[in-house]
Amino acid sequence: MSTPPAAPSAETPERLAFYERIGQKHLTPLWTSLAKLVTPEPVSGCQPAAWSFAEIRAAMIEAGALITAKEAERRVLILENPGLRGQSKITTDLYAGVQLVLPGEVAPAHRHSQSALRFVLEGDGAHTAVNGERTPMRYGDFIITPPMAWHDHGNETDQPMFWLDGLDIPIVQFLDASFSEHHDEEEQPIARPVGDAHARYGSNLLPVDQRPAAGASPVFTYPYARTRDALAQLARGQAWDPCHGLKMRYSNPVTGGYPMATIAAFIQLLPRGFQTARYRSTDATIFVAVEGRGKTRIGADFVVEWGPRDIFVVPSWKPVVHEASDEAVLFSFSDRPVQEALQLFREDRHSA
Amino acid sequence: MSTPPAAPSAETPERLAFYERIGQKHLTPLWTSLAKLVTPEPVSGCQPAAWSFAEIRAAMIEAGALITAKEAERRVLILENPGLRGQSKITTDLYAGVQLVLPGEVAPAHRHSQSALRFVLEGDGAHTAVNGERTPMRYGDFIITPPMAWHDHGNETDQPMFWLDGLDIPIVQFLDASFSEHHDEEEQPIARPVGDAHARYGSNLLPVDQRPAAGASPVFTYPYARTRDALAQLARGQAWDPCHGLKMRYSNPVTGGYPMATIAAFIQLLPRGFQTARYRSTDATIFVAVEGRGKTRIGADFVVEWGPRDIFVVPSWKPVVHEASDEAVLFSFSDRPVQEALQLFREDRHSA
Amino acid sequence: MSTPPAAPSAETPERLAFYERIGQKHLTPLWTSLAKLVTPEPVSGCQPAAWSFAEIRAAMIEAGALITAKEAERRVLILENPGLRGQSKITTDLYAGVQLVLPGEVAPAHRHSQSALRFVLEGDGAHTAVNGERTPMRYGDFIITPPMAWHDHGNETDQPMFWLDGLDIPIVQFLDASFSEHHDEEEQPIARPVGDAHARYGSNLLPVDQRPAAGASPVFTYPYARTRDALAQLARGQAWDPCHGLKMRYSNPVTGGYPMATIAAFIQLLPRGFQTARYRSTDATIFVAVEGRGKTRIGADFVVEWGPRDIFVVPSWKPVVHEASDEAVLFSFSDRPVQEALQLFREDRHSA
Amino acid sequence: MSTPPAAPSAETPERLAFYERIGQKHLTPLWTSLAKLVTPEPVSGCQPAAWSFAEIRAAMIEAGALITAKEAERRVLILENPGLRGQSKITTDLYAGVQLVLPGEVAPAHRHSQSALRFVLEGDGAHTAVNGERTPMRYGDFIITPPMAWHDHGNETDQPMFWLDGLDIPIVQFLDASFSEHHDEEEQPIARPVGDAHARYGSNLLPVDQRPAAGASPVFTYPYARTRDALAQLARGQAWDPCHGLKMRYSNPVTGGYPMATIAAFIQLLPRGFQTARYRSTDATIFVAVEGRGKTRIGADFVVEWGPRDIFVVPSWKPVVHEASDEAVLFSFSDRPVQEALQLFREDRHSA
Repeated sequence: MSTPPAAPSAETPERLAFYERIGQKHLTPLWTSLAKLVTPEPVSGCQPAAWSFAEIRAAMIEAGALITAKEAERRVLILENPGLRGQSKITTDLYAGVQLVLPGEVAPAHRHSQSALRFVLEGDGAHTAVNGERTPMRYGDFIITPPMAWHDHGNETDQPMFWLDGLDIPIVQFLDASFSEHHDEEEQPIARPVGDAHARYGSNLLPVDQRPAAGASPVFTYPYARTRDALAQLARGQAWDPCHGLKMRYSNPVTGGYPMATIAAFIQLLPRGFQTARYRSTDATIFVAVEGRGKTRIGADFVVEWGPRDIFVVPSWKPVVHEASDEAVLFSFSDRPVQEALQLFREDRHSA
Repeated sequence: MSTPPAAPSAETPERLAFYERIGQKHLTPLWTSLAKLVTPEPVSGCQPAAWSFAEIRAAMIEAGALITAKEAERRVLILENPGLRGQSKITTDLYAGVQLVLPGEVAPAHRHSQSALRFVLEGDGAHTAVNGERTPMRYGDFIITPPMAWHDHGNETDQPMFWLDGLDIPIVQFLDASFSEHHDEEEQPIARPVGDAHARYGSNLLPVDQRPAAGASPVFTYPYARTRDALAQLARGQAWDPCHGLKMRYSNPVTGGYPMATIAAFIQLLPRGFQTARYRSTDATIFVAVEGRGKTRIGADFVVEWGPRDIFVVPSWKPVVHEASDEAVLFSFSDRPVQEALQLFREDRHSA
Repeated sequence: MSTPPAAPSAETPERLAFYERIGQKHLTPLWTSLAKLVTPEPVSGCQPAAWSFAEIRAAMIEAGALITAKEAERRVLILENPGLRGQSKITTDLYAGVQLVLPGEVAPAHRHSQSALRFVLEGDGAHTAVNGERTPMRYGDFIITPPMAWHDHGNETDQPMFWLDGLDIPIVQFLDASFSEHHDEEEQPIARPVGDAHARYGSNLLPVDQRPAAGASPVFTYPYARTRDALAQLARGQAWDPCHGLKMRYSNPVTGGYPMATIAAFIQLLPRGFQTARYRSTDATIFVAVEGRGKTRIGADFVVEWGPRDIFVVPSWKPVVHEASDEAVLFSFSDRPVQEALQLFREDRHSA
Repeated sequence: MSTPPAAPSAETPERLAFYERIGQKHLTPLWTSLAKLVTPEPVSGCQPAAWSFAEIRAAMIEAGALITAKEAERRVLILENPGLRGQSKITTDLYAGVQLVLPGEVAPAHRHSQSALRFVLEGDGAHTAVNGERTPMRYGDFIITPPMAWHDHGNETDQPMFWLDGLDIPIVQFLDASFSEHHDEEEQPIARPVGDAHARYGSNLLPVDQRPAAGASPVFTYPYARTRDALAQLARGQAWDPCHGLKMRYSNPVTGGYPMATIAAFIQLLPRGFQTARYRSTDATIFVAVEGRGKTRIGADFVVEWGPRDIFVVPSWKPVVHEASDEAVLFSFSDRPVQEALQLFREDRHSA
């Protein structure tokens, strides 16, 4: 509706009585709410927001003294969108939190229908275990937990480990499809050595009988070292997308699709001084600065200056412009696979 | 979690002060809400519910006297789930309403990113137009409106026309992806004769250059006459699925998939006296009785006795048992395509 | 190679001796045959050809007196491309023959990895059985036999039954993938009533648990009555493709793809007096005139005048022009699914 | 047909005269050839065969003195299956040859609808260019040329370069779909630096807007170093498939499918002393020993003892048993993608 219809004229006493009466039968008139249900463009409570890692870290260290990983099950501080407080959401349909695992701690094994990603923020060498294989965690590593995969974390180093968790908790809640259970053991048994998934699925080879199949990526860790090398190689070509700089998506080598059915993840490099053209899309996106410093303008008014580990949110359909002071790398994730599967994804590449 | 963890012991004053302080930075502890976010089985506000058509019809006739289709844009009474009042939802992620178009009225042309279905409840011969083609509407016809397709309705008969609208409004809202606009004209121009889509796409033929493609079914009407014949033919085999009787899904002939990306629709026949085995699935489902009488038990306690045109809702993961007094036909729809696309669909066929 | 390289100069005695010597090790030089192996455009032994049904029919009746269906297993006269004699091929990779089943005869049940189509040319009411279901055969009906499906034919009428068989025998031979066996019984047991497949799969419905799956169409008969109605409906729009008139492909409702993995089939209507624009494609195509009279020019010189039941062949990459004297309907089939699966299909729509 | 039908009894003079007469109309009886056209199991002219690299190398060096790469366009000796002589085929539907490019030579740029693979046998550092990017060639590297991609080779080292070419020339010929042309330049212009394709497509990342798409793998080189590391990593698990040892297939990261539409390629490791269980499949396969020594029995009688660079052929449906004296690595390729696309692939894993 290019011009929303005027609210029906004269909510007469007759009509109001009618609404009251039918309300008792769980009926309600559409015409009093159509304009709010079907809008010309997206209308959302999700707002631009930003968190400096310094602030998050300080709060986490304090949390580390207040509760053990064992008691908490997951010692995580949830990043709540200021426009969606009390709902444990960072965007309308995604969840994000920062997790701390102290030296010697274990986040016990469980599994659930919710998918998860981890993006490592600080520390080196703690591990995540997924479906019987462990992977070490290093700064900038992107790690996934497929739905219903057993997973646990452990920190056998002498330094705290911090990472960002991204989950589709709101989506699974919305679809009334949450299932979960605890493992009998605190840590799942290990069935394959470190690096097995990468050799088996992530080296441009696949097992001879492997068919492309629906499901999350069997490559469950995307180490930053490998990703950073690829970005460096491609950056040599100096072929910058005006809207993105150099932007890649993490992929599932068994299908070429996204690593998980509900969450897409991206990594982009902005050369020093680069300013992106205005861009917007329907997938609200959470960003983590990985390298370099810069600033991002979201919509008309919101500006965040970021450095490594800082986190910010671009809501759906809000124009975004990034500007890198140094060569910068940004990690991001969104619900784009859901949008695309449901034929609802739109993007707008016109600078204006 | 088979046994949810006990709430962390002793929310100490220290912790409470911490929560308060970090709350101002839009941070909140996960451990106080994990049990509500990730549940062992789905937990939802959606409840079983039922509406008799007699009640709906009476309310609609009253509405017909209170507001014109023109003023309302769509003269619809929304069926609100009693556990989700005020949200215009019949299940956690779907919308349903009953629309009335009186003789001579037009529901003006518009389009939106939300997908819609119509299931005709009463009347004969009004039309729906989609993308330049009209189709007549008859009892039991299933008609779709793909996302962003121009659509309008008109009643050139001398009888009122009632149908059920099902839309993915909550899904599109949840994904912050609503777009819509009005057509310049009240009724869209007609480009193709009645029956064109069925001849072009629905007759086991396709245009020579047609490739399977994502998107809604180009067959936008599924007349009850054709559907009923197919059910009758198959019923002769007497091969009843214990959980469903004889259950079919409407399909998209270009892909073999669901007619729309977000909504699946089904038609099932229960022979006289048949009682289905207990069944449950994660896709909350809205049922419309089309023929015959029977009753349905939802969960432990909720029983609805239904006859033609009556409507009832089975929430996600609630066991359902149908029992047909006469040979009965039930129409139903749900968000199953979303569940399946996101790898979240589950069903449980064990009678217990 | 826009200009094929000159044959290597001077096949010296030294070279010839070398070729002789290495030939004993099963080695041979590429450079003496490269120009024949990799050509600038397709080079093929397949030629334009045509058969009048009158001639075929007369020969078949004679064959009917010379051998029984039982002795022959299949009383078929193979249509051999004049450029590919002795190879049982009508095009480089397809086989076609005309089968006669006399009143009271049975073509006994067998199955094989080769796919087959039947296009009914004369007679009414004999049956084909596929996978436990029979279908009556009427003029213009298109019927498929998926790979390894049991099939048999029977003529319980008092008139002879003639149809065209199209099979991928050369393809299966080329891939060394032929498997076949006889059924213990002459006629397979019947498990489902006539019309079951159409009700179950061909009515824009599918069984509730049906997923799009690879494999041949479960709708194994496409009656001409239904097809002809669709053509008539679409012809009203008068929207003629310059190259084809009105051309449709038979489709698999479970996928929207071709009815079989190796063979595509098409039906096209040419209005009275219509002449198609020159068109060529890499899939050599066999045509059967179904209704009306006309003529077709293939390449520069070959012209066939056809009427109902006449058969002709258009080789790969040869331009074709049809001209209809009356409103005409042409059936055709080709290896297009193979071409497309292997990324080799080309077509050229430019009239010249 | 479990027992092929007896040849029709008594080819009477009457029948023979009939066959002669209808032969002039390009008709021929099916019943005299059905048993040869549709066989109970594959029947093929393709035979087991083997070539020692020493023999091939000697012949190639001789060829190197007899003709320049420029004159030959491609200085290749074709490996002809002894059962298919004169057809330039190594199996019924594939071609293989060994190419030699001497120091300073260039194999000039051209393109064609045929797909090609290269497997490097000897030499280090010559290059292949595909679609504007060069890749160095090292022992054991697997390199592809997608259909219609410009490609050329150059040897700027001081040592000869030998590799195996595998092409689908017979398939493209069979489908009458050959197209080809020469480039204006001897060497195509270079648009991207070495390693670009691997960074862009082969690192578990894809360009942000990349959708899974049909077509050959954009990763056009699979260096042996990376492949060998993956095999070594997986071999640690000691989980040997009885039929294959450890067998992987090269994959297309954009789809998870085969690297080309017509040719699959595999790499397998056999631990020292390992003997595979009898295995057969419908895809005739060409093997190249890469490391180690062993022997292979094909069918009942054919045994080849192989060492690095030796080549042998296993026809369709012939049982094969490998036995490795040392830890061995075998490269192989076949038409499996065609077989699978056409629903004709079979394998038989039962040792007997």
